[in-house]
Amino acid sequence: MSSHMSTTQKAQVFQSNGGPIKLETIPLPVPKADEVLVHLKYTGVCHTDLHAWQGDWPIVTKKPLVGGHEGVGEIVGLGSGVHNYHLGDKVGIKWINGTCGTCTYCMHGGIEQLCPQAELSGYTVNGTFQQYATVQASQATRIPDHVKLAEIAPVMCAGVTVYTALKRTEAKPGQTIAITGAGGGLGSFALQYAKCLGLRVIAIDTGKEKEQACRAAGAEAFVDYMTTKDLIQDVKNHSPDGFGPHGALIVAAAEKPMQQATEYVRSDGVVVCVGLPGHGALIKADVFQTVARMVTIRGSYVGSMLDAQEAVDFFARGLIKCPTQIKKLEDLPSVYDDMKAARITGRIVLDLQK
Amino acid sequence: MSSHMSTTQKAQVFQSNGGPIKLETIPLPVPKADEVLVHLKYTGVCHTDLHAWQGDWPIVTKKPLVGGHEGVGEIVGLGSGVHNYHLGDKVGIKWINGTCGTCTYCMHGGIEQLCPQAELSGYTVNGTFQQYATVQASQATRIPDHVKLAEIAPVMCAGVTVYTALKRTEAKPGQTIAITGAGGGLGSFALQYAKCLGLRVIAIDTGKEKEQACRAAGAEAFVDYMTTKDLIQDVKNHSPDGFGPHGALIVAAAEKPMQQATEYVRSDGVVVCVGLPGHGALIKADVFQTVARMVTIRGSYVGSMLDAQEAVDFFARGLIKCPTQIKKLEDLPSVYDDMKAARITGRIVLDLQK
Amino acid sequence: MSSHMSTTQKAQVFQSNGGPIKLETIPLPVPKADEVLVHLKYTGVCHTDLHAWQGDWPIVTKKPLVGGHEGVGEIVGLGSGVHNYHLGDKVGIKWINGTCGTCTYCMHGGIEQLCPQAELSGYTVNGTFQQYATVQASQATRIPDHVKLAEIAPVMCAGVTVYTALKRTEAKPGQTIAITGAGGGLGSFALQYAKCLGLRVIAIDTGKEKEQACRAAGAEAFVDYMTTKDLIQDVKNHSPDGFGPHGALIVAAAEKPMQQATEYVRSDGVVVCVGLPGHGALIKADVFQTVARMVTIRGSYVGSMLDAQEAVDFFARGLIKCPTQIKKLEDLPSVYDDMKAARITGRIVLDLQK
Amino acid sequence: MSSHMSTTQKAQVFQSNGGPIKLETIPLPVPKADEVLVHLKYTGVCHTDLHAWQGDWPIVTKKPLVGGHEGVGEIVGLGSGVHNYHLGDKVGIKWINGTCGTCTYCMHGGIEQLCPQAELSGYTVNGTFQQYATVQASQATRIPDHVKLAEIAPVMCAGVTVYTALKRTEAKPGQTIAITGAGGGLGSFALQYAKCLGLRVIAIDTGKEKEQACRAAGAEAFVDYMTTKDLIQDVKNHSPDGFGPHGALIVAAAEKPMQQATEYVRSDGVVVCVGLPGHGALIKADVFQTVARMVTIRGSYVGSMLDAQEAVDFFARGLIKCPTQIKKLEDLPSVYDDMKAARITGRIVLDLQK
Repeated sequence: MSSHMSTTQKAQVFQSNGGPIKLETIPLPVPKADEVLVHLKYTGVCHTDLHAWQGDWPIVTKKPLVGGHEGVGEIVGLGSGVHNYHLGDKVGIKWINGTCGTCTYCMHGGIEQLCPQAELSGYTVNGTFQQYATVQASQATRIPDHVKLAEIAPVMCAGVTVYTALKRTEAKPGQTIAITGAGGGLGSFALQYAKCLGLRVIAIDTGKEKEQACRAAGAEAFVDYMTTKDLIQDVKNHSPDGFGPHGALIVAAAEKPMQQATEYVRSDGVVVCVGLPGHGALIKADVFQTVARMVTIRGSYVGSMLDAQEAVDFFARGLIKCPTQIKKLEDLPSVYDDMKAARITGRIVLDLQK
Repeated sequence: MSSHMSTTQKAQVFQSNGGPIKLETIPLPVPKADEVLVHLKYTGVCHTDLHAWQGDWPIVTKKPLVGGHEGVGEIVGLGSGVHNYHLGDKVGIKWINGTCGTCTYCMHGGIEQLCPQAELSGYTVNGTFQQYATVQASQATRIPDHVKLAEIAPVMCAGVTVYTALKRTEAKPGQTIAITGAGGGLGSFALQYAKCLGLRVIAIDTGKEKEQACRAAGAEAFVDYMTTKDLIQDVKNHSPDGFGPHGALIVAAAEKPMQQATEYVRSDGVVVCVGLPGHGALIKADVFQTVARMVTIRGSYVGSMLDAQEAVDFFARGLIKCPTQIKKLEDLPSVYDDMKAARITGRIVLDLQK
Repeated sequence: MSSHMSTTQKAQVFQSNGGPIKLETIPLPVPKADEVLVHLKYTGVCHTDLHAWQGDWPIVTKKPLVGGHEGVGEIVGLGSGVHNYHLGDKVGIKWINGTCGTCTYCMHGGIEQLCPQAELSGYTVNGTFQQYATVQASQATRIPDHVKLAEIAPVMCAGVTVYTALKRTEAKPGQTIAITGAGGGLGSFALQYAKCLGLRVIAIDTGKEKEQACRAAGAEAFVDYMTTKDLIQDVKNHSPDGFGPHGALIVAAAEKPMQQATEYVRSDGVVVCVGLPGHGALIKADVFQTVARMVTIRGSYVGSMLDAQEAVDFFARGLIKCPTQIKKLEDLPSVYDDMKAARITGRIVLDLQK
Repeated sequence: MSSHMSTTQKAQVFQSNGGPIKLETIPLPVPKADEVLVHLKYTGVCHTDLHAWQGDWPIVTKKPLVGGHEGVGEIVGLGSGVHNYHLGDKVGIKWINGTCGTCTYCMHGGIEQLCPQAELSGYTVNGTFQQYATVQASQATRIPDHVKLAEIAPVMCAGVTVYTALKRTEAKPGQTIAITGAGGGLGSFALQYAKCLGLRVIAIDTGKEKEQACRAAGAEAFVDYMTTKDLIQDVKNHSPDGFGPHGALIVAAAEKPMQQATEYVRSDGVVVCVGLPGHGALIKADVFQTVARMVTIRGSYVGSMLDAQEAVDFFARGLIKCPTQIKKLEDLPSVYDDMKAARITGRIVLDLQK
């Protein structure tokens, strides 16, 4: 850790779920043996941060908590056991802050986000709504020097999540997938990553504006779920052979699109759910059709370290664009207000230097 | 076709769904260019035959219809375009009677049971409740000469179905799966095939008798769903590392076991549904848990020609036992009565020579 | 078969390997029950045709023989057992003319080109150097109506072969492969298909002209095997992380590039060989390095029906360009002369109407 | 580290390749933050240890060196960053002593033995020919308490290596593989693990004694490479359908069996090489046959942490037997003499307490 580094920093802290979020001055965290200390420059704000603050989910958060899990910055401190990172390296901090390294999921690799002892940024450990944060070296996402940090911040969660989910459709280059919620923030990432994977996309969303956005991002067809008379048949008709798409990615946080997807994917197709509707929401699928058509339905949860590096790699090659709106750390509470009122388009990124 | 073959035969025929099933004398079917004519010796009777007769399913059957799709016998006639089968070859007739050979599922192979033009034995074409039946050569399952035909008949549907479903759990040798309904006819096949695949089994069913049967067939643990206080936790506890089984196979025809399986499989686990509860039954799974634990749920439908040959191969090596009860063709209506009354244990096989 | 069809046609026929090739008038072939009769419009000429005529390979050809296996045209006759093709459908005839439909490779699907009873166009059965030819329906490649037949002809063999081989590298979108011989006819196809699969390419060939062609076709790096001081290190250096490419595709018909590829692919990398050097040529790899680096080396042979349809699909979407030189059927002997003298650049296509 | 632990220990140390190996008293090693200290009870002796001492391989060893990489014992010390192991846990130390945790191979998981910074027990760091040794926690193989340590020691390298190689044949339960060198120490492990994986085995070795051993271990067929008139055809004939085995595992350290395997595996078959013949040895395969038959040849190198845990798991279930001969640590030089003279049958295990 460099000697002239300040010992305090600004952070957005809350003491209780739904309670006030205050901009405080707190000490810098100290990296453990296997961690790095990151001087954060930017952080995205994700719906999950809002849920964490509100306490919406079955797992309890650390308290007091500094939220946030889409941070990017530069390494300024190294734990005693870290060998492969150097001061000055650009890295990202994502949802998974650390894993045990020895359980079946860690050994297997590529799915270590399922480690039962995984630490979660901005949830079980302090996150990225502060100027300095720690992350396990083996979960620190390397970012090439030429990449603009403000733009890549949302890749850390939104980008990685849809990229991983796309891989889990098992659709192969040249095949077609449907994306429900394709016109939103996650959807825009999904569309672009789908093209990187050689996939063709039928976008599902509503409204002329979203249709235009989807087509601009590479969708070959658009189905408006509000105006279509038969969504199932429309989606099938847009697949090249009429059998339906090979896969479906549901980024919309609603039950109905999941069930619809089990009907419009082709026999042997795969439906991947990412969006989280409210408590108690169910994935539902007709048994007879699911069995007779051998349909697969699965969940996908953020991504592994490998997924994150791949998602960053496509971004660093200039293949992914993410329109962001830059705000300041102090704006966080008002951003949550906007989120709750559904007033946000594109991704919000906080400049942590200001 | 040998010249001294009789030109008529006995068959069980019905004219309308739920109407009378009559033992009639009808002409022998004539094989098309790509078909073989099989002199059937034995046929299993499957619940699906009952559903077909009753007209329980969304797809309409041929009428009048000769049901049945677990037949075994000997080739006595060859279509003009058949090269790789010979008179006297032992073969089985299964649910899939023929496929188009050119669609994406047929080209892909190994999943050609999904061919939209597939013909179904005892459903869209006459089946195995007769003494002579036809089947497309490329869907005729070869049976080695040393195999006892009466015993292998139920493999044609019950065996192939669970074998295929086991493969679709993607569980690897040494891993553990749960089987719901393990004490029944399908379950017994499933347990034995699971062992052939190197899998360890947690059997789920009810009663001392079924527990004994499951343990005798190789189950390492048994959970009685009627007496357990916490089925989810019990199944997890029986998995070697306590994380839950890698896969689950639901042969029981009920909704609840499907949803339970999504809860007790480990993160990244796979639930495969085979059993068909009544019309409108749904697979249900909690969205949050399915996403956060990256669970996969899928249907599995009979099997491909390749699956069938593999299932026969394990049987032919003596690794699969199937306790059968032999009856006569004329007994079919009373077998249906017994099925409806749930009076059958083991598999019923009809001797077609008597 | 339409009644006004002529009963004779022009064909290039040879009686003995290396003997004269004569433009003769011969009867139209008659499709078997499972075959279609195709009125051919164009055919590519492949090096394999030259080898077949010369008798260079261990398997004996039919004689007299009409060679050729990159033909495209329109169906004008249907065997009695063909249901899914119609008169007027555009189709291609490729190297695999028919398979048994029942062996382990045919059941498996996707690798049925390995069927031990496969018939080979222009080798074991008459091929596409004639105006009318037959092909098994399940091996007839569908071509969309809007595709220009003259341009797609070489996809039937050259395109399908490299596309299949690329898939066998198991490289995933975003990963890098090396292609040796990238500047030639096969190489040009390989480069374009690699991009369709989301792959990044290091091209290996020699000369400024080929470098330009490779870069124009999308190669991100070029290594000149004649001028490089250390080919192994150069290729590794061009891979994004310096570990070497994930895969290598050897379309050059020479031993040395195969061995080099086993050295420059990364640990866990895959080398796929397609090119056929002369009789007795060996793939060689250092045992110690292959074991300690867990390298995979494999052959790839034409493609399956599914591979062919996928290769056509990418072409039909306008993603593949193939510069062809159109000649007449009567030019075949002079084309062989040019081939032997290595005077050909691009692919030769014969117009069979002239 | 418990306070009453001695601070010195016995170790077999050499200063220069091929120089004297001396039983010395040296200090206990100190575990780094991410390592555990293991009180070793037993260690196997592997040919690789002999090669390391002799300096036979292209990579230079640490010097002075304590060799050995098949050690088992009990954890008596924990690095400051280790959370998931406890004092008293039984663990094994294998060839891979530690990996970087952040490279592409470590992120991918399941192939982290390819990490370019991997530390190797008894090669780049001190190994198991001492009473106390260190290993990275994430590479320490857990051993259940009921397992006899003396018997499982050879699983740490020999067992894991063949188990991993078997998986890399990609042969599925019910399929057949050939094992060359099946009658030796590695071969015996391979045969037993093959059965765990549901595979059928054609054993290749020589002599009545080895034939008996192979059949006793479950081989269904035996080919004597010294007396057979046509090894290729014999192996093919022993495969159930005559097409040849699906895979081949070459544990013999010789060139010829590798080339033969490329000829006798079926089309689409996989040859996995494990044995290391002398410097400069080559894998050779006919290009034409490898391409036309789509054969795969690959190397396999020890195993990942996951492979090791799986191999231990099968052993702990009582499915693997390994006949061992127990000697003392001081016997190591004479064991090397026996190895060089090929006087060893079964695996040698050193009791480190004596």
